[in-house]
Amino acid sequence: MPVAKVHRISASAPNDVSGIAASIAAGRIDPKGVVAVLGKTEGNGLVNDFSRGMATTALLRLFERHLPQAAAAQICLVMSGGTEGGMAPHWILFERAEGEGGASPALAIGRAHTPALPFEQLGRLGEVDQVAGGVRAAMRDAGIADAADVHFVQIKCPLLTAQRVAEAEARGASVATRDTLKSMGLSRAASALGAAVALGEIDRAAITEAQVGTDWSLWSGRTSTSAGIELTNHEIVVLGMSPAWSGPLAIDHAVMQDGIDIEPVRGALKRLGLGAPGQIDAAQRSRLVALLAKAEASHDGRLRGHRHTMLDDSDIASTRHARAFVCGALAGLVGHAEIYVSGGAEHQGPDGGGPVAVIVDRG
Amino acid sequence: MPVAKVHRISASAPNDVSGIAASIAAGRIDPKGVVAVLGKTEGNGLVNDFSRGMATTALLRLFERHLPQAAAAQICLVMSGGTEGGMAPHWILFERAEGEGGASPALAIGRAHTPALPFEQLGRLGEVDQVAGGVRAAMRDAGIADAADVHFVQIKCPLLTAQRVAEAEARGASVATRDTLKSMGLSRAASALGAAVALGEIDRAAITEAQVGTDWSLWSGRTSTSAGIELTNHEIVVLGMSPAWSGPLAIDHAVMQDGIDIEPVRGALKRLGLGAPGQIDAAQRSRLVALLAKAEASHDGRLRGHRHTMLDDSDIASTRHARAFVCGALAGLVGHAEIYVSGGAEHQGPDGGGPVAVIVDRG
Amino acid sequence: MPVAKVHRISASAPNDVSGIAASIAAGRIDPKGVVAVLGKTEGNGLVNDFSRGMATTALLRLFERHLPQAAAAQICLVMSGGTEGGMAPHWILFERAEGEGGASPALAIGRAHTPALPFEQLGRLGEVDQVAGGVRAAMRDAGIADAADVHFVQIKCPLLTAQRVAEAEARGASVATRDTLKSMGLSRAASALGAAVALGEIDRAAITEAQVGTDWSLWSGRTSTSAGIELTNHEIVVLGMSPAWSGPLAIDHAVMQDGIDIEPVRGALKRLGLGAPGQIDAAQRSRLVALLAKAEASHDGRLRGHRHTMLDDSDIASTRHARAFVCGALAGLVGHAEIYVSGGAEHQGPDGGGPVAVIVDRG
Amino acid sequence: MPVAKVHRISASAPNDVSGIAASIAAGRIDPKGVVAVLGKTEGNGLVNDFSRGMATTALLRLFERHLPQAAAAQICLVMSGGTEGGMAPHWILFERAEGEGGASPALAIGRAHTPALPFEQLGRLGEVDQVAGGVRAAMRDAGIADAADVHFVQIKCPLLTAQRVAEAEARGASVATRDTLKSMGLSRAASALGAAVALGEIDRAAITEAQVGTDWSLWSGRTSTSAGIELTNHEIVVLGMSPAWSGPLAIDHAVMQDGIDIEPVRGALKRLGLGAPGQIDAAQRSRLVALLAKAEASHDGRLRGHRHTMLDDSDIASTRHARAFVCGALAGLVGHAEIYVSGGAEHQGPDGGGPVAVIVDRG
Repeated sequence: MPVAKVHRISASAPNDVSGIAASIAAGRIDPKGVVAVLGKTEGNGLVNDFSRGMATTALLRLFERHLPQAAAAQICLVMSGGTEGGMAPHWILFERAEGEGGASPALAIGRAHTPALPFEQLGRLGEVDQVAGGVRAAMRDAGIADAADVHFVQIKCPLLTAQRVAEAEARGASVATRDTLKSMGLSRAASALGAAVALGEIDRAAITEAQVGTDWSLWSGRTSTSAGIELTNHEIVVLGMSPAWSGPLAIDHAVMQDGIDIEPVRGALKRLGLGAPGQIDAAQRSRLVALLAKAEASHDGRLRGHRHTMLDDSDIASTRHARAFVCGALAGLVGHAEIYVSGGAEHQGPDGGGPVAVIVDRG
Repeated sequence: MPVAKVHRISASAPNDVSGIAASIAAGRIDPKGVVAVLGKTEGNGLVNDFSRGMATTALLRLFERHLPQAAAAQICLVMSGGTEGGMAPHWILFERAEGEGGASPALAIGRAHTPALPFEQLGRLGEVDQVAGGVRAAMRDAGIADAADVHFVQIKCPLLTAQRVAEAEARGASVATRDTLKSMGLSRAASALGAAVALGEIDRAAITEAQVGTDWSLWSGRTSTSAGIELTNHEIVVLGMSPAWSGPLAIDHAVMQDGIDIEPVRGALKRLGLGAPGQIDAAQRSRLVALLAKAEASHDGRLRGHRHTMLDDSDIASTRHARAFVCGALAGLVGHAEIYVSGGAEHQGPDGGGPVAVIVDRG
Repeated sequence: MPVAKVHRISASAPNDVSGIAASIAAGRIDPKGVVAVLGKTEGNGLVNDFSRGMATTALLRLFERHLPQAAAAQICLVMSGGTEGGMAPHWILFERAEGEGGASPALAIGRAHTPALPFEQLGRLGEVDQVAGGVRAAMRDAGIADAADVHFVQIKCPLLTAQRVAEAEARGASVATRDTLKSMGLSRAASALGAAVALGEIDRAAITEAQVGTDWSLWSGRTSTSAGIELTNHEIVVLGMSPAWSGPLAIDHAVMQDGIDIEPVRGALKRLGLGAPGQIDAAQRSRLVALLAKAEASHDGRLRGHRHTMLDDSDIASTRHARAFVCGALAGLVGHAEIYVSGGAEHQGPDGGGPVAVIVDRG
Repeated sequence: MPVAKVHRISASAPNDVSGIAASIAAGRIDPKGVVAVLGKTEGNGLVNDFSRGMATTALLRLFERHLPQAAAAQICLVMSGGTEGGMAPHWILFERAEGEGGASPALAIGRAHTPALPFEQLGRLGEVDQVAGGVRAAMRDAGIADAADVHFVQIKCPLLTAQRVAEAEARGASVATRDTLKSMGLSRAASALGAAVALGEIDRAAITEAQVGTDWSLWSGRTSTSAGIELTNHEIVVLGMSPAWSGPLAIDHAVMQDGIDIEPVRGALKRLGLGAPGQIDAAQRSRLVALLAKAEASHDGRLRGHRHTMLDDSDIASTRHARAFVCGALAGLVGHAEIYVSGGAEHQGPDGGGPVAVIVDRG
């Protein structure tokens, strides 16, 4: 019976994997079981963020010392740039172990790799459908039959480059956009909608291509997507609860309606046994294994009726403002800032808000 | 018997005083009674922040339409740049009215202007002593006898310019620094220590000149200072509770030990009747008149044991990171982000933390 | 016979008009003759650049002390934010005086105000045609019959706001874009094309609406446009040579094919008597009254075959990079950096390059 | 008889060493002869610039594929972050080959590694003396007897970290500063003064410790220094002309008195046969092998009498402004922007100016 392990490890630099190496050396982590690594790195999270590449390179080199190259390449590496405000750079490793885990149902981890996406389908219904299929496959891999038991889906999706656009047009196909930066947003958007379909949050028949990346009334409350240049298919990780798994870990989720809507998160923590009227205390904090959230500036420039200036600041990108602010709100609730808050939330939570997942050690 | 009024008014731009003008026109604000205006404006809060000057100009022109120039000049205008994250640009007007106010003791407002500070005393014990005297004078003006009844002191202090340095040196005097930016920090630091002495938080005899702007173990838990080029003396506003005043408003304060230490603020709100286990609800929110706080990045680069990157980010100043983050933590508590969070907290609260004042309408 | 005067005056802050005031007091400038003021102010030149508004306010208040409000309002005020690199903040005043000026033909100044532009025409052929007509009117006002004698056209054009979009849609009209920032670029683009038509640089019949703001092969070599929220029509200033004017001043222009293509500018200076093999010397420099240029990052990310990173830098806007860089190239030629380099060069010069105008005192 | 080779190779990313790898594969570069690699990488050139680390890692991995680890470690790698404006990211490799080179005297390359510097000597006269000795050793290695034949000295110097400060203090020693960032400037400053002493530009007896990093009247016109955390000693590369070397390459230098003082550089180019009245043409450009310069904002905030705003911009560091601006001035002279302009010019050229070195292929 599989047992899910989640390791949250601090990083002292974008390429500092020493904490992971130490855990492997101490036998706390078995590289063979590592399914995915999420990393918060300290770049700007935008186009010229080199901290993500540094992190990926360092992680690959570490795992290649322990695994065959092909096996290391199977590990899903999702680097999210931007540790604004007090956010602490860190890694979150998801490991699938075997053996006697105790409590069940428990946290379950599933993974799927989709086939390569034809570039002309990126940001379109073709990508929505491919991702929907991929999420269903990852659910099967996790042993989760009911979509209601899925609490978090992490998707790494492709983007368009000049060469990819050329390749498609050479075949007489036309792409959704020739703008690389725009293609990242469209791919995140279509992937999020695909997950929403697989999770039963949105009826596939109700989605038109024109809504991808434009109609923010459509969203998933359990999905986080990020686009990367290094792949042409989708890497999908599903986290949920399954009777086929055992172990001390459990996961739940919440949806923030805006950047300071923390009460639903408090509710999720409480459902997992971390109830507290105010900020959770040190004892409970030690049982909070990971907190994953999405942040963005609301498109109407307002927060609960008051104006925010995040979209008008030409010196600091709105995503950087939003991560610092939302991390502050969540850190005020849980009592530390080693939180995974990422930006770029197209169709991931309502406009200005976002999905949040909490993973707790039931002890 | 005086009655204190506090008006929090949103601003749609750094020079948008239309909301204040409307309140004056509607009779809600009597310009003759306005003692001070605090403003959060949307610049960077650093050297080239022009939003503060725009705001001051617009406010002066507004008040000069209603008051003799000399009277308008008496109003203490404190502009704090930087509305990072979801923080909402806004004004907070402090008005002293007369007549039947109801409950007593109540919020009391006092003001004092010190004589011009000899430039060679800036950032030194001479400034500490002058400010201590000024705070005592403002307490008398507010009718507050016991320093324990003071909950917030706002001080506007001078800075050094090349001309001022030259003027002092021409007299054979030597200044604390020739660096204008440094002089702002030193003036804020000495002013904060002066207030701490007047409030009985620090024993004057225990302060040596070398500690000004260096020994962060010395701090006031009730003071906020900001340096401005437009004055050569100090403008001091004291807020506290006094039996000589009546009215629905009350004030209390708290000290955050770090950027996410919100429970002391929850406690202060509770003492004023706004108790809530989680985020205070809309009904209570409407009774929260103003929330004033200080934010800064801890100098050791850590928050509760985890690393923060605010001091290493050469693209965004640490003060901007800190305001966004702390505003998020406080907004998560009170349910909106029209909060006055300012940076530059030398000797104002412990390293990485800061004082917070809450003003509530007891209804 | 009119005489054109051009006054270049340094500014010590965005609202420092003291130099202009001093020139008026000394009789060097007659406010009644001032046609336009161009200003380089030290903001970021982007959305939240408050330095432009500060400058406009200060200039208006100055002129209103000397002129009837209506007359002051006639002066065309064009503020360009962004003094990156060594660029010096400064004002350039264009004055029309009367009397014996000496040499003729000489610099001629013309101005025109178009009617208000229906919002649905902004960024479309309707704006192109309205501006073309306005430029022709300004040429007549300047006494310039031959478009070949026009060397610089400065246009201030409107932009769309949420209210303006709503007003148009209420009439059943549809606007070119609902994005305010985009509308600025489209308005600059259509205005530049309109000027190009009036100057005979582009055949009106050859322009389709789809090319506005997209086909960079269409451009004017003598036009500079900037969008402002404070007007709904166009303010147009034309500078050229006319036999109807006399005086020591002369103007010529050049087109830079890229950001370092300074030889055409050297040629224009030489044609006006400022010939020099290398950097022009102090004596000649004193005769260079004004240098006006446009700067932008080439859209293909390359400069003479080498990669530039201006478009990939998410920390600094490409317009800020380009102004600093082009100002350096031009300052290396003329020997000082009190140069008017502005960004946003849609259809103003070739992609990555831009038009340059030089005004010289023939002594 | 040794022959110096210099290879300037474009980089498409901070870790793009493919161009170097291709030159090695094609036999144009012999890894065994590589003495040093200078790199301009596209980060911010400040504290959180990860592009430098990416570059160093990629270069080391490349050379370790061709050389024993110890030999690869001997190559001096100097990464300079910041390619503002149109500056092109690129590598400059310095190689020492043997055999028939033709013309002599010719470009000569020398290198020296000093012993580890006791941390308490960093930024003090002890570092000045150690570097002076190291430069003399590198001159001997280059076969340059007369300091007048040295045209460029590149020094990589250490900095202080918390651990290093602790190590020194544990021995009862006191360091020049405990501020890491400050220690970088002090180390660059002391190293530049040391080189100036070795080159006979400054009399050692005339230097007092208090002048290090404060008295800008002391400077070298041929030195460039940069501080790195990865070493505790100094890596010194000397470039000059020597009769002991042969080959087509020659070097000369110039000193810019300010950021736009390009005529001395034109003079140096002319001395090496690249004379041109204006911008040098494509034919001559192909013979300009490398251009190395230093840039900084003048401390008095003025450039030739006009104000610059580089020191007052809290959104963009002055070093970033200065690199973009100076690169523009030099690119206007030489006709391309693949130029090595680095910041942080303590005692390297006069205040606001800097040394420039040009390397030309005499064909």
